Amino acid sequence: MSETLAETADIARLSTIDGDFETRLDALLAWEGVSDAEIHRRVDEIIAGVRAHGDKALVEYSNRFDRLSVSSMTELTLSAERLEQAFIGLPEVQRAALSKAAERIRAYHARQKPESWTYTEADGTVLGQQVMPLDRAGIYVPGGKAAYPSSVLMNAIPAHVAGVREIVMVVPTPDGVLNELVLAAAHLAGVDHVFTIGGAQAVAALAYGTETVPRVDKIVGPGNTYVATAKRAVFGQVGIDMIAGPSEILVVSDGGTDPEWLAMDLFSQAEHDEDAQAILVSWDATHLDAVEAAIVRLLPTLEREAIVRQSLSRRGALIHCHDRAEAIDLINRIAPEHLELSMADPEALLPEVRHAGAIFMGRYTAEALGDYCAGPNHVLPTSGTARFSSPLGVYDFQKRSSIIHCSQEGASELGKVASILARGESLTAHARSAEYRIRP
Amino acid sequence: MSETLAETADIARLSTIDGDFETRLDALLAWEGVSDAEIHRRVDEIIAGVRAHGDKALVEYSNRFDRLSVSSMTELTLSAERLEQAFIGLPEVQRAALSKAAERIRAYHARQKPESWTYTEADGTVLGQQVMPLDRAGIYVPGGKAAYPSSVLMNAIPAHVAGVREIVMVVPTPDGVLNELVLAAAHLAGVDHVFTIGGAQAVAALAYGTETVPRVDKIVGPGNTYVATAKRAVFGQVGIDMIAGPSEILVVSDGGTDPEWLAMDLFSQAEHDEDAQAILVSWDATHLDAVEAAIVRLLPTLEREAIVRQSLSRRGALIHCHDRAEAIDLINRIAPEHLELSMADPEALLPEVRHAGAIFMGRYTAEALGDYCAGPNHVLPTSGTARFSSPLGVYDFQKRSSIIHCSQEGASELGKVASILARGESLTAHARSAEYRIRP
Repeated sequence: MSETLAETADIARLSTIDGDFETRLDALLAWEGVSDAEIHRRVDEIIAGVRAHGDKALVEYSNRFDRLSVSSMTELTLSAERLEQAFIGLPEVQRAALSKAAERIRAYHARQKPESWTYTEADGTVLGQQVMPLDRAGIYVPGGKAAYPSSVLMNAIPAHVAGVREIVMVVPTPDGVLNELVLAAAHLAGVDHVFTIGGAQAVAALAYGTETVPRVDKIVGPGNTYVATAKRAVFGQVGIDMIAGPSEILVVSDGGTDPEWLAMDLFSQAEHDEDAQAILVSWDATHLDAVEAAIVRLLPTLEREAIVRQSLSRRGALIHCHDRAEAIDLINRIAPEHLELSMADPEALLPEVRHAGAIFMGRYTAEALGDYCAGPNHVLPTSGTARFSSPLGVYDFQKRSSIIHCSQEGASELGKVASILARGESLTAHARSAEYRIRP
Repeated sequence: MSETLAETADIARLSTIDGDFETRLDALLAWEGVSDAEIHRRVDEIIAGVRAHGDKALVEYSNRFDRLSVSSMTELTLSAERLEQAFIGLPEVQRAALSKAAERIRAYHARQKPESWTYTEADGTVLGQQVMPLDRAGIYVPGGKAAYPSSVLMNAIPAHVAGVREIVMVVPTPDGVLNELVLAAAHLAGVDHVFTIGGAQAVAALAYGTETVPRVDKIVGPGNTYVATAKRAVFGQVGIDMIAGPSEILVVSDGGTDPEWLAMDLFSQAEHDEDAQAILVSWDATHLDAVEAAIVRLLPTLEREAIVRQSLSRRGALIHCHDRAEAIDLINRIAPEHLELSMADPEALLPEVRHAGAIFMGRYTAEALGDYCAGPNHVLPTSGTARFSSPLGVYDFQKRSSIIHCSQEGASELGKVASILARGESLTAHARSAEYRIRP
């Protein structure tokens, strides 16, 4: 770790040559979602309540948890007209920005759409895969302070592009507060219905349906611990997206990017919440010092300074590594949600990046551009799950069916093979079903 | 319901015009996986044991649960040479059939491979998606009676085609019994290591790694309640495939297929286990009578007669519907794992089939052909989850990373939009990070 004369920030400085580097990195990265038995119990109770009493339970829970006093689901339902009103009512500059973002997100996701395919074998047998959209998707949008219109666009547009017949959004309105930007985003994204319900009761309603809320096939979108626990509980009854952990960024810099830019990129992650993680890696120790100095200098200017300070001191790090090869090892070990390759030639590294949710290349591509309007999705795998998971996409709102159409000759030939293998597994009805199709 | 003079089988006869049709169908389809608190407790204990004691725990649990007496993981490890030996040692006819199946499964799955893509916008900004295989996949293969070599091919070949670097298979050997066909299939499918461990302890070892068993990124494959519970428990730490319910088939017949063929197709599903579901739908009542008579006639000739009788009487049905349109409604409502369109013109129906795991078209395409060697995967969504899930495929062993590379001009334009939206969400560090990239 290099000494610096400048004031130091409360952020860990690590070097890959430190004897305890591995241990310290493991500790920084460690994250296990809480699974509180009491929360499980309460969520199970709420789900059972909604399954048994439908709309009545939704009204009761919403009055209790969101401090409302409604008497029926009618008061918890917003029409398509109400969403359009919200859009029209926005200040022009916001309306234009939201429209631009929606347009770019739509254009990017349109390229993700897989097509059905078939091929025909020499004997006339046809094999393939038919791709179909889900009938209904449910989008969970958090209420209150964390109600993000960008999140509505990112969750609903891929469903709309996929061709989902009906997109149902739920958003709680604690103390009755509606967020007009969120409703405007729902209008732009092609949402069909909005119910102003939230929490485990909203997840239960989407999974099982009530008199008013239609049962959906998949539930996506972020939420608090109750929402996450409820999503896990209904998994299997409906599809769900990944359960997200805290948001993270890994920036790899070659030393040539303005230290203030990088400091602000780290802040933009850290300002989400106290558990968010911002890590910078570089093989240039002097550069790391300069970024640390920029952090110290800029921190007092931040609106969310307290959150950023907590996040950086608890989970942030500036890591000095030996060279590019070591930086690549760190990338693939961390499997970050967001990866910024802030360098002159990011293309050179790209083929070696095996695990990352989204890759922001070059000095100009701030992660914030991707959060809002570059086009790709901002719902990304966290906590190292980029090892096996993908960004939310059109593919999450479609499913495939295998197609098998054997010709008479094809069935005869395949029947012989299937018969031998089925008998090897002692499944003789399988064998005989295949053998009926063998030509004498 | 039509009267028939022939002997009747113990299988429900339903008609869509029955007053209680909806209720009876719901009851037939109802299936909720058991979630026994005692099993949860024991699985959690086993997982904790493996995390704390690694190989030592695996040896102890294997000795206890599989009635072995080994002293180290060396005795629970099979080499690539051992797998090859198993393959070479097979009778020629089995070796040829297994090879043929593997070759066809490989050819089909090769067509599923999505490619990376990028596009460049007018200002030079590049957007895209990079597709990468998982580093390591774990394949769970049940031991004892349910050890199916076809299942090894169907789970491991897509991983191999995806380009997974290391495929690790686990298979328990109760009382030390190895299944040579299973090992031979592992050889053909490209499995790298086999450990003869099973149950929750094998799932825990794959999810967290031990001194001998490498940690994997995703675990796939069928298993008993302990295995399913363990997979749910480690979900998030690693990826998992769907938790499968009992296997099912829905056959729709236009009346023109030999009743004995259809009876045997239903049996081939029912012989799996007592919970398996076999349903035949037709608008031809006389044909349903003929199939019922064939069932009565053929049942006594079955090796697994007792299982088939139980399955048919508990969960089977012959359903008379009004016409094709009603048959399509039933298909989409049931969302079957396997759908046989046993009719002259299955292509006419195909575009209207929205939900099915695999579609077997025409009179010659017995489901058993797809189970073994047609090419498409036999790991399919059960219990109506075809509404939102797909067959196991190459895509399950790959993941995507978004690519964003903004040009200086692109970043400047996008920065303006991001700034407005970020300020609308009160995320000002996001806004300022974007604003740094706006050209003055």
